[in-house]
Amino acid sequence: MHIRPDIKIIGFDADDTLWASEPYYRALEQVFCDLVQDIMPPEISSRELYKTELGNMPLYGYGAKAYTLSIIETALRISNNKLPETSIQTILEAGKNLADSPLELLDNVEAVLKNLSLRYKLIVATKGDLLDQERKLKKSKLESYFHHIEIMSDKQTGDYQKLFQHLDIKAEEFLIIGNSLKSDVLPVLELGGYAIHIPYHTTWLHEKMDACNLPQERFIKVESITQILQDCPWIF
Amino acid sequence: MHIRPDIKIIGFDADDTLWASEPYYRALEQVFCDLVQDIMPPEISSRELYKTELGNMPLYGYGAKAYTLSIIETALRISNNKLPETSIQTILEAGKNLADSPLELLDNVEAVLKNLSLRYKLIVATKGDLLDQERKLKKSKLESYFHHIEIMSDKQTGDYQKLFQHLDIKAEEFLIIGNSLKSDVLPVLELGGYAIHIPYHTTWLHEKMDACNLPQERFIKVESITQILQDCPWIF
Repeated sequence: MHIRPDIKIIGFDADDTLWASEPYYRALEQVFCDLVQDIMPPEISSRELYKTELGNMPLYGYGAKAYTLSIIETALRISNNKLPETSIQTILEAGKNLADSPLELLDNVEAVLKNLSLRYKLIVATKGDLLDQERKLKKSKLESYFHHIEIMSDKQTGDYQKLFQHLDIKAEEFLIIGNSLKSDVLPVLELGGYAIHIPYHTTWLHEKMDACNLPQERFIKVESITQILQDCPWIF
Repeated sequence: MHIRPDIKIIGFDADDTLWASEPYYRALEQVFCDLVQDIMPPEISSRELYKTELGNMPLYGYGAKAYTLSIIETALRISNNKLPETSIQTILEAGKNLADSPLELLDNVEAVLKNLSLRYKLIVATKGDLLDQERKLKKSKLESYFHHIEIMSDKQTGDYQKLFQHLDIKAEEFLIIGNSLKSDVLPVLELGGYAIHIPYHTTWLHEKMDACNLPQERFIKVESITQILQDCPWIF
């Protein structure tokens, strides 16, 4: 017998769930690879950058500023401090453009939020840079559908535990909707919550993972956000 | 006749209220001024840096990453892209040290939190970089006294309004304790809340301001945090 779940809060991941983000990061990576192409081919410089990013993650976290700093650091390192300084300036400017990139909502997001917000308390649960995310939410004009935005410094199990404590709810009263198995789906399932996975066409290497043996009674995967309203058995 | 206020939540500012912060920023500024001292004297380079910081604030916000990026930008600009690239590397490294600087609690902070946490719900209400502040809170070992940490992208009236909405309280149920008249005291008083000002010996130029005509029934200034327990008429 199925027990009807009592979901009280639905958390939406933001980047690449509500709006496009990854393509803008990949475009900045391309700027960097082009600037250092005389030193090494793009597949190598890109790997060097990823190495720097991973190393800096505990200190810098996620977001446009962290990414810009890691690019500058990598450019200096692989050029042995010989890169033209105008290149550093180019990186700084491209990093500012990333932070202020246009906001491109994913298809049908607003219609689904409108529907769900009538019956559930919705929040944005995202990691990344506070200011980046607040700016995107403002540009998205979706603010009114959400009770508030929760910026998490990371999205591991412990971070979600803190979130539930802060929201004064139990894990089984929480449903996460997001594009990342690693950051959205798995930690919430592990704690006993519900999760909907909406894959996005591009996934950052850091978020890539395979998953199997997910609890089918608390997890579904959909191809598009509208499918949630049709296919999700826990949303009433 | 005085109405006894019904304070439900006490918000503590973090930097330079719970722990020292400004001195570490000033030390990084000194690193920058030293690196460019052949180009211009420190009082001028320092002013140039402040100009960059102000210009970048809407995009970058506050915190160690924002400050590091503004220093690199200023160094490139005032040197006309002629600064040795090892200097950029020095700035990056000093910026990382800033982000991970040691945590020096201000005097008697823990005793006061211990006392207040028995009777009030305490939160940290701070602007700045999410990861910076979470790291500092962890290092401070004060986490258990606080219900949670609220990182605000800015501390203007509108940001506090959002905070109150999120906390589901009225302004008059909130007391802020902080070192900045501009960011802590004035916006909360304007909304009808209570405020305690504890000046710190160093104040960032951006936070400096004079204030007069503050509502005496909702505002006090103390010289040290322990004075709160003795002199604050709204804490019972």
